[in-house]
Amino acid sequence: AVTEEEVHLIVNRALKRYSEDRIGMVDYALESAGASVINTRCSETYERKTALLSLFGIPLWYNSQSPRAILQPDVHPGNCWAFRGTLGFAVIRLSSRICPTAVTLEHISKSLSPMGTIPSAPKDFAIYGLEEEGQEEGILLGRFMYDQEGDPIQTFHFTGEDLGVFQVVELKVLSNWGHPEYTCIYRFRVHGEPAH
Amino acid sequence: AVTEEEVHLIVNRALKRYSEDRIGMVDYALESAGASVINTRCSETYERKTALLSLFGIPLWYNSQSPRAILQPDVHPGNCWAFRGTLGFAVIRLSSRICPTAVTLEHISKSLSPMGTIPSAPKDFAIYGLEEEGQEEGILLGRFMYDQEGDPIQTFHFTGEDLGVFQVVELKVLSNWGHPEYTCIYRFRVHGEPAH
Amino acid sequence: AVTEEEVHLIVNRALKRYSEDRIGMVDYALESAGASVINTRCSETYERKTALLSLFGIPLWYNSQSPRAILQPDVHPGNCWAFRGTLGFAVIRLSSRICPTAVTLEHISKSLSPMGTIPSAPKDFAIYGLEEEGQEEGILLGRFMYDQEGDPIQTFHFTGEDLGVFQVVELKVLSNWGHPEYTCIYRFRVHGEPAH
Ligand SMILES: [K+]
Ligand SMILES: [K+]
Ligand SMILES: [K+]
Repeated sequence: AVTEEEVHLIVNRALKRYSEDRIGMVDYALESAGASVINTRCSETYERKTALLSLFGIPLWYNSQSPRAILQPDVHPGNCWAFRGTLGFAVIRLSSRICPTAVTLEHISKSLSPMGTIPSAPKDFAIYGLEEEGQEEGILLGRFMYDQEGDPIQTFHFTGEDLGVFQVVELKVLSNWGHPEYTCIYRFRVHGEPAH
Repeated sequence: AVTEEEVHLIVNRALKRYSEDRIGMVDYALESAGASVINTRCSETYERKTALLSLFGIPLWYNSQSPRAILQPDVHPGNCWAFRGTLGFAVIRLSSRICPTAVTLEHISKSLSPMGTIPSAPKDFAIYGLEEEGQEEGILLGRFMYDQEGDPIQTFHFTGEDLGVFQVVELKVLSNWGHPEYTCIYRFRVHGEPAH
Repeated sequence: AVTEEEVHLIVNRALKRYSEDRIGMVDYALESAGASVINTRCSETYERKTALLSLFGIPLWYNSQSPRAILQPDVHPGNCWAFRGTLGFAVIRLSSRICPTAVTLEHISKSLSPMGTIPSAPKDFAIYGLEEEGQEEGILLGRFMYDQEGDPIQTFHFTGEDLGVFQVVELKVLSNWGHPEYTCIYRFRVHGEPAH
């Protein structure tokens, strides 16, 4: 059996981790720390025609997030980058040079989605390391599947050894969970060891 | 008695719910998801004369939130819409057409209020469904009281049946908890079932 | 042994406190509540040359936070005010006149720092109360040390009696935890009793 003191310890540890950007891992793709999206190749940002500001019923401004949204921590519904179809690219300049070890993808919880499903969530995706910003094809670091039945925040670890040192990483989304029009990326993080 | 495993389960479930916008219910009035305030009728935004930016003691900009604040999740003290007196209106275009089932009102906790009381919190309020944006008087969906002694986040369920399908909802605040000058709304959410 | 009900109670109390700006104390230095940085004396903001926005590899905008960052609750890595060296000043006009009783300093957790250390965190610092905004030297309220091994959020209580009533408070940072170039302040809060 557990004592009250132990419960407090478990609760405090859980809240500490929660406060550490949820997962307690350095995010080298965080915009506020200096990362940026430098290219989205042929991805076409999907313009959701929902008026954010309207005056007497006349829409003044449409809410359409830029790819920068995926490097920003606010993941309230709508704070994502939506691209047309299921194939999307984001080339990201990290905040520093690292040996990449893992990435994290995040989507909203099903409970916050009107239909209780998340068809616009990414499914299959691949991660590449790029030697320089303009490089067309990078080195494959890993290929994974975001699970629509899993936690909203999912971390994927690279299994290869000596993957190299990179400051530019590419996310290539290959499929989604069924949405016919667009795919949404709420947040993308890159983890690793600092390069010496 | 509870095992350590069960404590972890309870803690993780509580944190999961906390991360789902606190209450795990879809908010059709969330600005980032496409909702907007389209009218505040005769409400008069209260200009709090607290300088946010000042240079050598000369105020440069006054912090006065627009009604949009009530559709935005940041509820740190001051991130609210304040209107003069106790009678206030907000007509909101939801992110989609729904059968409304409940609303949620949020104020800051007493512990974050200088005097330990929240007299500017709303008290009695009514919710209306509007057939179209310009409608003067909607259909009453429910009338409730925000409890100053309750949780900062309070959800109110409509009890009527077949209330109809709406994309425009009106919040009408009728009284507050005693502040003689203004009433503050920190966040207003609308819940329901998607209309088919 | 603890019952399941008691675990839920402990968890809910902890989350309630967490939601109350983490520590459940009124912050009179919060920008959204009306506070502002009115002077930084001779402090020199450190320009971190990390491009936030770049186009085809050409940096468009550099991410360099203003001193206002220390009065804003977002403490994701980078959302801080960095000043050159170890000596830094921030004169803050509080949201109201108070008898100050404590201050809180916050830095990021070591787990969110690339090297696992926080050398740019403040170490020794002093707090002064100022009679008026232009005052050169205030009344010393307390001198403290932010502990790099402690919690990211640390509250320091003044021990003197009848310290007086102030609307202007000065933070004077005297040293850091070893960074040779700059010191970062993520968030600074001021607590106290409302003056009558
Ligand atoms: K985001
Ligand atoms: K708000
Ligand atoms: K900050």
